[in-house]
Amino acid sequence: MTVEPPASGPDTSSLEHARSLVLVHTGDGKGKSTAAMGVALRALARGWRVLVVQFVKSGDWRSGEQEMLQRLGADWRAVGDGFSWDSEDMEASAGLAREAWAAAEAALAGGTHEVVVLDEVTYPMTWGWIETGAVVAAIAGRHERVSVVATGRDAPPALVEVADTVTEMRNVKHAFESGIVAKRGIDY
Amino acid sequence: MTVEPPASGPDTSSLEHARSLVLVHTGDGKGKSTAAMGVALRALARGWRVLVVQFVKSGDWRSGEQEMLQRLGADWRAVGDGFSWDSEDMEASAGLAREAWAAAEAALAGGTHEVVVLDEVTYPMTWGWIETGAVVAAIAGRHERVSVVATGRDAPPALVEVADTVTEMRNVKHAFESGIVAKRGIDY
Repeated sequence: MTVEPPASGPDTSSLEHARSLVLVHTGDGKGKSTAAMGVALRALARGWRVLVVQFVKSGDWRSGEQEMLQRLGADWRAVGDGFSWDSEDMEASAGLAREAWAAAEAALAGGTHEVVVLDEVTYPMTWGWIETGAVVAAIAGRHERVSVVATGRDAPPALVEVADTVTEMRNVKHAFESGIVAKRGIDY
Repeated sequence: MTVEPPASGPDTSSLEHARSLVLVHTGDGKGKSTAAMGVALRALARGWRVLVVQFVKSGDWRSGEQEMLQRLGADWRAVGDGFSWDSEDMEASAGLAREAWAAAEAALAGGTHEVVVLDEVTYPMTWGWIETGAVVAAIAGRHERVSVVATGRDAPPALVEVADTVTEMRNVKHAFESGIVAKRGIDY
């Protein structure tokens, strides 16, 4: 089937210009965090200040992006920074997640960065480590110039509600299913 | 609802390590190209060579990522580079898309880059400007070390078939729908 390409973009002349936006990347598919890092890249290109708060300890999984984005000027706060990490100790893990959240909350309120990425923030919400209501309230009441990108599976309805744009990354087909392990440099 | 976090990742010991992977980002939602740029960022962090071939003329839309990724060492080939562009002249546009495809095809076969991003490649396929069969054959027969990220709506079934991982970015909620225009630095 051949279709004609669009002649032009949508007519946006009557639309409101937002001071800032809230994006949510959710769903079971790949690309949620990766797209958030792409947004960070784009924001840095505009000369904006970017803070990435990483809510799940990733070991090696985000280190490449972290190194590259920090080289381009991003600030980075990973859960458990400066602590030894014992993934068996849930109470300690919850405490570290709450500390990362406190850093995020301060940035949302303070307007220190034009973009704050709350990477994998839905997991500590799902696990009951940080309050969904507090996260949503901090986003809704943020400094007007702060845009937010929140990622993770199972975004709660209240987070979807406060967002301007919500994308579900849906897994159509995954290499894991055909027995191929994640490839360093591509998947992490 | 509170659920327990996973104790560890999946057991991958018996899984095959692929030399390279093919990722497809499709669907009507946001994040398809942005996630591809995130993959490029990650690959650059690993010291890999990255080529981005951009199949739809974007004006300002990709210039930020282009500048940042080039600064980090990526090669970039945008459709119509070096030509004046008249979007009313479909035959000329089709020719430029075919030239961009020829550059991509050479990189896929030559193994000059560990990652080749075919950004928005589905559109010239849908418009009949480049042959889906030729694209799929070039991907299937690529140099073994070249991973591919192909993006765009309406990925044809043959492209899905040749891919290892396919993510559908599904639009759950979009700021456009509530009358807010795309925000420079976030949406483009």
